[in-house]
Amino acid sequence: MTEHIELIVRYIDCWNEADAHRRRALIARTWTEDASYVDPLMHGTGHDAIDAMIEAAQRRFPGFRFSLTRADGLHEFVRFSWELGPEGGAALIEGSDFGVVASDGRLQMIRGFLDRVPEGAVA
Amino acid sequence: MTEHIELIVRYIDCWNEADAHRRRALIARTWTEDASYVDPLMHGTGHDAIDAMIEAAQRRFPGFRFSLTRADGLHEFVRFSWELGPEGGAALIEGSDFGVVASDGRLQMIRGFLDRVPEGAVA
Repeated sequence: MTEHIELIVRYIDCWNEADAHRRRALIARTWTEDASYVDPLMHGTGHDAIDAMIEAAQRRFPGFRFSLTRADGLHEFVRFSWELGPEGGAALIEGSDFGVVASDGRLQMIRGFLDRVPEGAVA
Repeated sequence: MTEHIELIVRYIDCWNEADAHRRRALIARTWTEDASYVDPLMHGTGHDAIDAMIEAAQRRFPGFRFSLTRADGLHEFVRFSWELGPEGGAALIEGSDFGVVASDGRLQMIRGFLDRVPEGAVA
C-alpha cells in the first residue's frame, strides 16, 4: 500500500515537473514503457506521448500545480483524486483517476475522470 | 455514454434487489459470466459469487439502500460514486468504483474503493 501511495505521489510529481530532463527521468521511473493514459481531454501511450501530453498541459495552465487530495490502493489497482490550480491559490479543476500497477511497481495504465471543471476552463 | 450510465444504474439495482430470483436475473443482464468484483471488504468472480456477496451485504445492512451520486464513462471504462444508508435517511458509507465494460455491454470487472466509512460500520 505504501508503495502504491509513493507511486501516485511520483505520478503527480511528473505532472508538476517543468524541467524537461527531470520530467523524462521521473516518467521512466513511474510508468512502464507501454503504459497508457486516457482522460476526456488527452491520451497518450508510451513515455514520449505521456511526456508530450504533460508538457501540453503545463503550457495550457502556466504556473498551475497538481495536488493530491486522496489516494488508495487495492491489490494491483490504485485510485486517487487531485486538484489543479495556481500555486498557493484555490483549485480550479478536480479529478479522480484509476490506475493499474504493473508487476515491476510502475504504472501500466491510468484512466482519468473529471470531478469539477469550471465552464471554459478546458475549452 | 447513455448505455454506460444505464449499466451503472442497473449495477446499483443489483445491490438493492432483495428478491433472490429478480436479483439473479439482474446480475445476468449486468455482469459477464466471468466478471470479477473486488473491494477492500469483499470479492467475487462469476454470477454465483457476486450474488452471494450482494446477499451478504444486504444481510449486514438490513433496510439500507445504495444510491448513485455520480456516474460517467470513458470509452470502455466507467467510474461512479455511491452512498449507502437507511432508506430515507442520511448516508452512512460512501464509495467510488471503477469498472470495465465488455464488448457485449455488460460489466467485466468492478474495483471498489471506500470514500467514507464511519468507525465500526464495517467491522
